[in-house]
Order: sequence, then C-alpha cells, then structure tokens
Amino acid sequence: MKNYDLALIGLGNVNRTLASLIRDESASLAEQLGFTIRVTAITDLRWGTLVDAGGIDLAQALDLAPGETFASLGGVDTCDNETLIRTCPADIVVEATFTNPLNGEPALSHVRWALESGKSVCTTNKGPAAFAADELKALATKNNVRFEYEGAVMSGTPVLRLASGPLKGVGMRGFSGILNGTSNYILGRMEAGLRQDEAIKEAQQYGYAEADPTADIGGSDVRLKVTVLANDLLGAHLHAPDVPTEGITGITQEMIDQAVQQGAHWKLIGQGTKAADGTVTVSVAPQMLDSSHPLAGISGATNALLFDTRFLGQVTISGPGAGRIETAYALLSDIVAIDAFHHQR
Amino acid sequence: MKNYDLALIGLGNVNRTLASLIRDESASLAEQLGFTIRVTAITDLRWGTLVDAGGIDLAQALDLAPGETFASLGGVDTCDNETLIRTCPADIVVEATFTNPLNGEPALSHVRWALESGKSVCTTNKGPAAFAADELKALATKNNVRFEYEGAVMSGTPVLRLASGPLKGVGMRGFSGILNGTSNYILGRMEAGLRQDEAIKEAQQYGYAEADPTADIGGSDVRLKVTVLANDLLGAHLHAPDVPTEGITGITQEMIDQAVQQGAHWKLIGQGTKAADGTVTVSVAPQMLDSSHPLAGISGATNALLFDTRFLGQVTISGPGAGRIETAYALLSDIVAIDAFHHQR
Repeated sequence: MKNYDLALIGLGNVNRTLASLIRDESASLAEQLGFTIRVTAITDLRWGTLVDAGGIDLAQALDLAPGETFASLGGVDTCDNETLIRTCPADIVVEATFTNPLNGEPALSHVRWALESGKSVCTTNKGPAAFAADELKALATKNNVRFEYEGAVMSGTPVLRLASGPLKGVGMRGFSGILNGTSNYILGRMEAGLRQDEAIKEAQQYGYAEADPTADIGGSDVRLKVTVLANDLLGAHLHAPDVPTEGITGITQEMIDQAVQQGAHWKLIGQGTKAADGTVTVSVAPQMLDSSHPLAGISGATNALLFDTRFLGQVTISGPGAGRIETAYALLSDIVAIDAFHHQR
Repeated sequence: MKNYDLALIGLGNVNRTLASLIRDESASLAEQLGFTIRVTAITDLRWGTLVDAGGIDLAQALDLAPGETFASLGGVDTCDNETLIRTCPADIVVEATFTNPLNGEPALSHVRWALESGKSVCTTNKGPAAFAADELKALATKNNVRFEYEGAVMSGTPVLRLASGPLKGVGMRGFSGILNGTSNYILGRMEAGLRQDEAIKEAQQYGYAEADPTADIGGSDVRLKVTVLANDLLGAHLHAPDVPTEGITGITQEMIDQAVQQGAHWKLIGQGTKAADGTVTVSVAPQMLDSSHPLAGISGATNALLFDTRFLGQVTISGPGAGRIETAYALLSDIVAIDAFHHQR
C-alpha cells in the first residue's frame, strides 16, 4: 500500500488534531483511503523541531510534559523552517500556521520552499492562496507536485474541489456565499434582540470569535476567501487587496429590525461574478436577503456557498466553516486529492 | 486530444439535448473538458437506428422531416438494441430511456450488454443502479470500464460524486433528502392553500408532473433514488423493493395547516442511516420538519440532500433535480468522470 510521509508546519489545534487522528486511527484510515500516512517531521515555535525518517512516535510527540520541548525526544528546541522544509524526508508539507491577512507570510514562503523542493503542499492557511495562487500553482506544476488548500475557504466543507471535480464543465458564472460563521452568528443574535457589542461578547464566550474580532466582523477574513474563490472558480487573477470589502460593523439594530419586519435577513455576503467578456467583479458587503433567497436561512455559525451556473442554475452547498476536526478533515481531503494526482501521473 | 465516441440509446429530451450541445458547442466543450466527443450511433424506437463510425452528422440526425426515419440518412427504421450496443463503434454507451420502476428493464439489459462488450456506460436512468448496482459495478470493474449514473439521483446536481470524491473519508453516517421536485412543489402549493388535487393539476400544467403522477406522489421515484444512495454512500446492498415507502397522498389540508401554524413544513423525505454495526436502515415517508431543519426551507421543485458525517456533521447540497439541460449535464459530467478514469489506468 502506498504511503505518504508528512511534515507538519505548526502544531496548533488543526495539525494536532490531524496528528491525533493518524496516531489513533491509522489502520481504519488506510482501509478507507487506500494509502497509509506517517508523520516524519514536525516544527512549531513552542516545541521546536523533530525529524524521524522512520516515522515520529506521535504518542510521545503529542504528549510532552510541561516545560519539555522536542529536544527531549531527540529533536531540537529551535526552528529553521526553510532548512527543515527543503531537506526533511517528507512527501507532503502540511502548512497550518496562522493566516497573516497583510501578506500571507510566513506561510507563503513555507509553501514556496516545499514546492521548490519537490514536495506537495496542503494547507488550511488562506494567505498563500489569497496572495500568490498563480505563482504557487505554476511552481507546483513545474515540480510535478500539488498545491491543495480546500480548508482555506469553508474548512472541511468542500467547495473548491466540488467546483473543479463533480461540477467541471458546468459553466461557472458566479458565486455568492456566507463565508464567516462568526459574523453570521452575530447577525443572527442581533435579530434575536442583542446589540452588536453584546452579540460579539457572546460569540467570544462560545469560542466563535477571537479576542480581536476585527478580521471576522470587518470582512477581511471573507476578503481572503473571495480572492481564493474568484481565482479558482472564475479564472480571475486577483490578490486580496483587490477585493472591495465592507464588514458588518455598520449594521445597526434599526436595520436589523426593519429587515425582520419584512421577513428578510442581513447577511455578510462574499461574491464574484464573471461577465460575458470574462471580466470578474468581486465584493464583500452586507446584503439584505429576502427569505426566499437560498442563503437567507443559513443560520448560526454555518457557512454556505451558492454557485451560479449555466447548466444547473443555482447549486448551494452548506456546512461547517470552522472547527478543529472539520479543518483537520480538510487536510485529510487534500491528501486524498494528492494521492489521486499521483495515480494519474 | 483524446476523443470519445458515444452511442445514444434513446433520443428523448435528455439525449437530444446532449446531442444538441455536442452539435453546437463541440469546440468550447473540448476547450473546457480537455477531450472531444462524437456521436457514432443512435437508436430510438421512433426513428430507428443510425451508425457512422466516422461521426454522425447531428445537424441532419436531429432535424428529420415529419415522417422521416434514420432510414433516410442511410440507417434503418428498426431497432436491435442488443446487436447495436454490443457491436457499435463507441467508447461510451449513453443510456437515456425511461425508467421502469418495476424491474429496471430494458435499461438494465442495455447497460449489461455495453459493459460486457467493454464499453463504459453513463445513464440518467434510475433502474439499472436501483435494481442491479452490485452486478453492474462488478461487471464494469471486470471489463476495466466505468458505470456512471450521477443523473439518476438529482439530475445534474452532483451528489454521488460529491460523496465519492471531495467527501471521501468523511465518515458517512447517513443521508436525508428532498428527492422529488414534483411532490415538494405540491406540498408547497398546499401550504399556500390549494387542495392536493388542485396542486397536482397545477404541477401538470407547469410540466413538473407527468400525466400519471403516481411515481412522484406515491414515493416510488424517491424509493429508487434512496436505493441508489444507500448502496453508494453507505455501502448497502439493497434493491428498490427493500425500501419501505410512503408517498404524500395521505397528507391532508388539516395536517398542512397545523404544520404552518407551528412554523413547520411537511416534506417527502428519503433517508438512510448506518448503525455502528454497519446495518443500513432506509425509508421514504413524509416528515414534518421544524423551520430550523436544513431541508425545511427547500421550496418549489428544488431538490436537496443532507449528508450526516462524522468529521463535518451536516453538509447539505441543494439544486435542480430535473430538467432537460440539467439532466444532459449529468451525462456530460459522467463522461468527464469516465475520462478521469482513463487517465488513471
């Protein structure tokens, strides 16, 4: 059975969840997927760097005692990501560091180093795909490897590969989505009568919102996702700063009340449309949707994406847009896609 | 560029629409899909049989004068489907005859003859997959070809290949869907105050319902789809008669009114669940759904399928479930899948 060796860049919630899955369920995963997975390298600012070409003992690596680093397992307590990524014994580099909304670094460099050294990449990081998708896809093609980033849009809910696989040839004319669960949750709670600041506090208590909710409610998180979708689905060549972006901070209780009276709902919508001449127009902005709109009923932290197509009209997929197990699954599905690519070569 | 030669079995709305697309847009389809398509054989009870290994002139074949048959184009005005399917110069047999809800014939035999003679099959016919999926899949594997039938469930809205491709490894635990647009339209019109017989008449006027609406409102159409889904998504080995089925004829105006008062909706739900021991339970029956249910807001003739999964919880896809161009696209997407299979061999 084919085996893939992984290098985990960052050991936060998502890569830790993926590693736990590999530790606990390698046999059943192999049976379902038709290949095995090992982790041969891990690097994280907190624990340092660990490499084992024979496969890291994940039970040990995921259960360090307080104060320990990877140095106590034979690794080092420092990180030299460029050297590690370029030289480690891995087939696939799994990038799961935090998204930098300004320029995508250092994740963008991590991806570039991996592809340059002939390794496929899967990532949940929005930065590389939103700031340098064209460059990185070309680099992957040149090196006969893959750059996969399904988790950058709706965590494990597949939208990029739904469009490129089962919907191939459908005539994609545009998309429209609820792509940030936090802001959708907040808008829903405002409909239930909370002020926006109260709804934000509640979202923070439940773990939906970060301590600094700016990226969620200001629209910059959705902006990155719209960039990725416009480039992948509509063949645009945008960078994140090209997307006109307005968040939900201007939505007042009066606007919400007026919508509710009409049976309508305010939603933060990220959208893109392709004109007949190929021009792609994108935006992130709140929109008041009539109750009959397919996105009007998407409530709570759920995400949804509506595809506007030539042959099928509107097709909508909804599902989780965040969560550690959901996002770890996105990485697993990226590895499945990389495996399919290797079968095709 | 790779080319696929098609044999069209049946030239009703769906295959006629597919043939028109090939006639009118072969260049742009080739550019999008990366392969070309020709039609080398057509058979239909009304027009007879036409074969041309060099590619049939579709402009002629789709525009016969009244009273003409394929005999006037050098074919014959009779049909011997077994001989044609076994011997015609085609890579792919496109089966689009009417579904027989009792035993799937003659479509089932059409598919069998094609696979036995080393041709891949794509079909929008629910019969073969609902009555003999295991046999036909094994036959395809043995002959190193494909048996594809995405259009048998929600026309071109991809559910089978969403599950087998982008959602591979997600841990499918069950599904629940609105799989018949006619009955969903009728239930919606009953909510608006029409009696069921009035709603059926209206659906017939708009072309949603057949002159004999029994298969739609009696649940047997959904039963076939549930059989296909349970086998494909949950690994069951069911035949259509195994599915307990109840249609919407028992839904009274009083039941509808009571639901509306509670903010709920009656829906005809086809569902399947897989227990921990692998047992699959299926049913087709009306259910009253609370307004917060992801399927409650699916209105009109739209279809939707909710996947219940281990890693992502609930993921729902909605889109058209019928229509000639939508169903012709299902066949096109089947051909795309067959092409991907050939790249993997």
